[in-house]
Amino acid sequence: MGEQQEREPGGRHQATPEPTVTLSPSAELPAMGEDELDLLRQTGRSWAEALRDRRNVLTTLPLDPGLGRYRSPPTPTRFGRFAPVEMFRVAEPGEPDELVATGPSGEAESLPGRMLARIRRTILGPPLTSAAVVHERMRKLVALPVLSSDLLSSVAYGPEAMLTVLALAGSSALVLSLPIGAVLVVLMIVVGISYRQTIPAYPHGAGSYIVAGDNLGRRVGLAAAAGLIIDYILTVSVSVAAGVHAVTSALPGLMPWTVPFGLLAIAVLLAGNLRGVRTSGNIFAAPTYLFIVAIAVLVTVGLVRAASRGFTPIPPEPVAATRSTGLLLVLLAFSSGATSMTGIEAVSNAVPAFRAPEWRNGRTTLTWMISLLVVMFVGLMLLIHFDGVTPRADQTLLSQLAHRTFPTGPWYVLIQAATALILLFAANTAFNDLPRLLFFMARDGYVPRRFLHMGDRLAFNNGLMALAVAAAVILVAFRGHTESLIPLFAVGVFLAFTLSQAGMVVHWLRKRGPHWRKRLTLNAAGTLLSGVVLLTAAITKFTEGAWVVVIAVPLLILVALRVRRHYDMVRVQLTPHPSRLNVARPVNPPSVAETSRRATGPEKAEHRPDSGEEEGPQTGEEPETEESPQEIWHLVVVPVERLNLAALRALAYAVSIGQPVLAVHISPSEDEAARFCQQWDAWGDHVRLELIVSPYRAIVAPLACYLEALHALRPDVTLTVILPEIVVRRRWHQVLHSNVPRHLRRALRQLPGIVVTTVPIHIPHAGVQRTK
Amino acid sequence: MGEQQEREPGGRHQATPEPTVTLSPSAELPAMGEDELDLLRQTGRSWAEALRDRRNVLTTLPLDPGLGRYRSPPTPTRFGRFAPVEMFRVAEPGEPDELVATGPSGEAESLPGRMLARIRRTILGPPLTSAAVVHERMRKLVALPVLSSDLLSSVAYGPEAMLTVLALAGSSALVLSLPIGAVLVVLMIVVGISYRQTIPAYPHGAGSYIVAGDNLGRRVGLAAAAGLIIDYILTVSVSVAAGVHAVTSALPGLMPWTVPFGLLAIAVLLAGNLRGVRTSGNIFAAPTYLFIVAIAVLVTVGLVRAASRGFTPIPPEPVAATRSTGLLLVLLAFSSGATSMTGIEAVSNAVPAFRAPEWRNGRTTLTWMISLLVVMFVGLMLLIHFDGVTPRADQTLLSQLAHRTFPTGPWYVLIQAATALILLFAANTAFNDLPRLLFFMARDGYVPRRFLHMGDRLAFNNGLMALAVAAAVILVAFRGHTESLIPLFAVGVFLAFTLSQAGMVVHWLRKRGPHWRKRLTLNAAGTLLSGVVLLTAAITKFTEGAWVVVIAVPLLILVALRVRRHYDMVRVQLTPHPSRLNVARPVNPPSVAETSRRATGPEKAEHRPDSGEEEGPQTGEEPETEESPQEIWHLVVVPVERLNLAALRALAYAVSIGQPVLAVHISPSEDEAARFCQQWDAWGDHVRLELIVSPYRAIVAPLACYLEALHALRPDVTLTVILPEIVVRRRWHQVLHSNVPRHLRRALRQLPGIVVTTVPIHIPHAGVQRTK
Repeated sequence: MGEQQEREPGGRHQATPEPTVTLSPSAELPAMGEDELDLLRQTGRSWAEALRDRRNVLTTLPLDPGLGRYRSPPTPTRFGRFAPVEMFRVAEPGEPDELVATGPSGEAESLPGRMLARIRRTILGPPLTSAAVVHERMRKLVALPVLSSDLLSSVAYGPEAMLTVLALAGSSALVLSLPIGAVLVVLMIVVGISYRQTIPAYPHGAGSYIVAGDNLGRRVGLAAAAGLIIDYILTVSVSVAAGVHAVTSALPGLMPWTVPFGLLAIAVLLAGNLRGVRTSGNIFAAPTYLFIVAIAVLVTVGLVRAASRGFTPIPPEPVAATRSTGLLLVLLAFSSGATSMTGIEAVSNAVPAFRAPEWRNGRTTLTWMISLLVVMFVGLMLLIHFDGVTPRADQTLLSQLAHRTFPTGPWYVLIQAATALILLFAANTAFNDLPRLLFFMARDGYVPRRFLHMGDRLAFNNGLMALAVAAAVILVAFRGHTESLIPLFAVGVFLAFTLSQAGMVVHWLRKRGPHWRKRLTLNAAGTLLSGVVLLTAAITKFTEGAWVVVIAVPLLILVALRVRRHYDMVRVQLTPHPSRLNVARPVNPPSVAETSRRATGPEKAEHRPDSGEEEGPQTGEEPETEESPQEIWHLVVVPVERLNLAALRALAYAVSIGQPVLAVHISPSEDEAARFCQQWDAWGDHVRLELIVSPYRAIVAPLACYLEALHALRPDVTLTVILPEIVVRRRWHQVLHSNVPRHLRRALRQLPGIVVTTVPIHIPHAGVQRTK
Repeated sequence: MGEQQEREPGGRHQATPEPTVTLSPSAELPAMGEDELDLLRQTGRSWAEALRDRRNVLTTLPLDPGLGRYRSPPTPTRFGRFAPVEMFRVAEPGEPDELVATGPSGEAESLPGRMLARIRRTILGPPLTSAAVVHERMRKLVALPVLSSDLLSSVAYGPEAMLTVLALAGSSALVLSLPIGAVLVVLMIVVGISYRQTIPAYPHGAGSYIVAGDNLGRRVGLAAAAGLIIDYILTVSVSVAAGVHAVTSALPGLMPWTVPFGLLAIAVLLAGNLRGVRTSGNIFAAPTYLFIVAIAVLVTVGLVRAASRGFTPIPPEPVAATRSTGLLLVLLAFSSGATSMTGIEAVSNAVPAFRAPEWRNGRTTLTWMISLLVVMFVGLMLLIHFDGVTPRADQTLLSQLAHRTFPTGPWYVLIQAATALILLFAANTAFNDLPRLLFFMARDGYVPRRFLHMGDRLAFNNGLMALAVAAAVILVAFRGHTESLIPLFAVGVFLAFTLSQAGMVVHWLRKRGPHWRKRLTLNAAGTLLSGVVLLTAAITKFTEGAWVVVIAVPLLILVALRVRRHYDMVRVQLTPHPSRLNVARPVNPPSVAETSRRATGPEKAEHRPDSGEEEGPQTGEEPETEESPQEIWHLVVVPVERLNLAALRALAYAVSIGQPVLAVHISPSEDEAARFCQQWDAWGDHVRLELIVSPYRAIVAPLACYLEALHALRPDVTLTVILPEIVVRRRWHQVLHSNVPRHLRRALRQLPGIVVTTVPIHIPHAGVQRTK
């Protein structure tokens, strides 16, 4: 992954037009470029020569791999961990010739496994085939609640945050809320339009990571992504904690259960999202719509009452000034109020999850969301002004407004319940967006590739799990008191906003196109305003916790770059390289005499021409580059502890392959070695045996070192180590058996040119013992 | 292990005289019986036929397994986990032809690994060769402190426990201590003589487990062993806790550190014992001798002072009676006082650790110990009587005696310090004995066989570690307050005493020999007295905690029997069986056409003639019994995810073996499958490819089920699954790679007839990336 991008830096989307469906399970196995196919063809030609006279042996299979096609297939023995998968052949003529796995193939065989699978199915629903990926998309009316709960819930605390800052300068300063609110509305509209412009420009994912990375370089894109990752994780833990607090403040008896309740809420969010986009839409639509209706009723009734007074504002209660009004205070109030905008970027990452045409549906949904936000924000700001409410420690502004507007009746309770519910489910936006962001990052190789994998409900299970775990850890670490994390939000979010819009400015400069000046101006204005909020928030809240973000963002970028570097390394190492195909090799293995000469003579160094100090021998050694079968010479090594059936089966397997075989026995003492030789001779000495006396009774280290020495003697010989492995039915029986094979396998993993083969010997449960 | 015993039940020691050195590293690899060698010969004959025309291929090795003998051996690449082991050939003529591993072979290669190895060496000392096992034996003067600290330290609490019970009936009842003490002395002497008789009868280990098991049946032997195991573990945690309390009551500021200090003490004991018998003797000799001297001085001075009074006892302080004097109280006092005898069995298990002649040295040491015990016990009882001290809650009896005897001067402090120290090191007896008990049990297959392994200092590392961990867990679980566990001791110890002596009674009845009547009488008396203590302790202390022992002993016996049953099962499964050699097999693999017929026809059932419901298919399947190489047909299966170098190397390896090869690709969708086919064709389609579409995106389950189905089609074909495995340098890089190979390997382990081969691909650290 990331191969195409690597070759066309900076111009990915123009150069290789991607298919419409970008969130596809096939992203895990991307197509090969023409040059890679060429390499394959070259490799294939060298194979063809090597295999000319062996094709018949290779392809005469002792059984039909199509499992006896067109007949009833054999039933597996149902012993393994998995329920048998029915394989059927696509029978229509012209269809490709392949087996298709059906049924819930992940279902376990054992009883607890089956129960677990059933519970899983009940919670998550039946698995969905890859072909269902298009149907598993969001309609606009589903997308609106799914994507907007974070944004719209922000009006529950944004205005309050602003007024709380202004109140520091006394009640007279509260009147400043109107001009600041007006600027915020302008900011909302500008950022909104800015993102509206982004969506058609990046129809397959218009998130800050992609836009900033595409136009400003990959490090900037990673900075935006890091900001968003921090924001998303915090959103989940903070909004879940806030929602739980809303419940526990109504029912104080539940206070000790804050953390378990929070974890339960995260589990519910996780389960809902693991079920997939459509289901989570159905679950989370109600609270959002309820909140919208509640605020609409509140604002309408409140403004009607204000109109009945002729719109004369009630003077706010006097508040003692503790600070003077100044630019800093205004900026602080501005940046605090700007938290009303967190969640605005939700749509742009989610564009590929919309039904076709994705970008148009996404853009329309964004327009609805911004309009709702602006209407609700303006309405609430006006109502606060006319009603003259001031921030109080014991009651939220929204609660005060609701109390004044509906002194009696169930409306107050409804508004409070809707607010608590939407705060709780605001976390859902993060569950929707973060896995997609991680998908895009994984496609570019900046995060582990497993984030590309779609689960059996076509959700990004790994991303969802990672988010849930991270949020749960924070929730537990802060024991549910996550208020102190709120300042960290704004910095992350506005970092992403600013970089995304700056990226769009560059985009228009590069691409131009119709109306590019107007669009550039709009994006530039958005960049400027977001940048001001970012700087204000980062500076004013630095000591309150924003410094964490200032440290975490570069750290995340660093990790992402290291991950990418590793994947680049792997890609280079795993790409067949034409120059490696022409290594001159002897066609026949040299004799032992020649070997000894080579091993001790000066020519030995030739075998490791590039085993530099730094590079580590295993990369310089030639076996790592072997690609063509005629270049492999074999020596099969069988470590034998005791000449029992396990050893005999391993020896039989080794011998039956038809390659040279060497048996090795490690003895704790000379006596034991002599005893073993006697057994070996009784058996008939069919295989060459090498004895190693290990007077310190270690087994793994001498064996590993001996194999390493053998490899050093002839680096071009592949050593196949055959280990018998006793497999027991009950897990606790494993402690009764030696773990030497496991230790040996781990030690040999690191050695070059050594292949480990495990021959299992199954010990049935003692309940069915045959002789006693 | 246990094979001989199985064949000659009940008469092990008579029938197969064992070598003098029973605690040998070779116990892990016991000799084969003549019938086993016969089986090997039969197997070998069938191989000889099969290999007649292939011997040349098999034995023409491409390199010299003797590592270029008589020349300077090649230096390994020093990349692996282990430092290279120097291999040298024993050059003298007539010597066996084998390599000997030298040097500290367990030393790691990496810097932290080297540091660890150095620390380990500093604490444990250089490794000892197996040949040193005889030198690593105990002299009598070393054995005495090592084995007696538990027994002698018992006099510090035994008399007190007895007097505390008697004091319940008022101070007048205290005079009963003299007759009860006399009975206890008789008990000590009888049990001591009884054990003295046991040692020459069982010179290679005279512990209760062996004596009771040999004469009364294996379940009785296991009961004795279970009692001792409980006793040993409790001894460590209780005596360490007591020792630490002695320190913390002197320095109350250290009280919060009770548990860490206790763990530290266990660690010191563990390290001392890991260094081996001789070193631990040197370390633990001082406290024991100090205690002996201190008590001797105390008793001597005290008795001299009493003599100066004309041996008139000082009347004890009056104590109010809360219970009447009765038989139950006397019995209770008797069983409480009997705790003075815990540790008496230490020598008998340790006999093989003495220098030759083992049994005579052991018996002499036992005599010394018993004499010391009796002298110290009698002296202290008399002193208590003459000084008229009564048990007090705030001060131990020993402390009171010391205070009265030495009102001034440093003697009091010395006595207290010696008592604290010996209590702390009483645990050392358990560290000496339990690993040996586990060795004997492991030899019979009742506990995991790893307890047979001697570490590089010839200590039983696994047994020592198990004891230290168990004791530490109990110490932590009870947070250092282990007093409540003291009643449990007596039950476990006297269970072992009683069974051991009862076993000796049966032994004399069976064997007779000189003076057998006298010996039988002595052992019978010991059995009776120990049995009375056991019953009294079990009944009177049942509610105080003895019920735990009553439950734990049968539980341990059950577990031991299950372990043995498993090992028996393994032995049966791993013994070459002559009847299995004559299975009629086709000499050539049947063609595909025939296969299909067989797979679907009625003959299919023939392949699993004994796959009963209960037995599980993998035992009934024939591949598990394959022993002869001509009976193995191969199909090499290579799962290919992407045609990169990893896959090509796996394919090249598969093809180079020279057996039929089948590649399998699992696709998430039809589109991806088609794309893969295109790549496959570009490469040249050298190997038969089977495509499986997995529309639910699972990989492991369909692949495992497909392989299972292939196996069901032809159970006589061995499927070798070749998995490329990406090996990274840094551990955290592993999360960046798919864990499908690991999951697949685990799933395939359980399937019969499937061999898994891992071809490693080493990815160097990205810092040495070649292209960028």
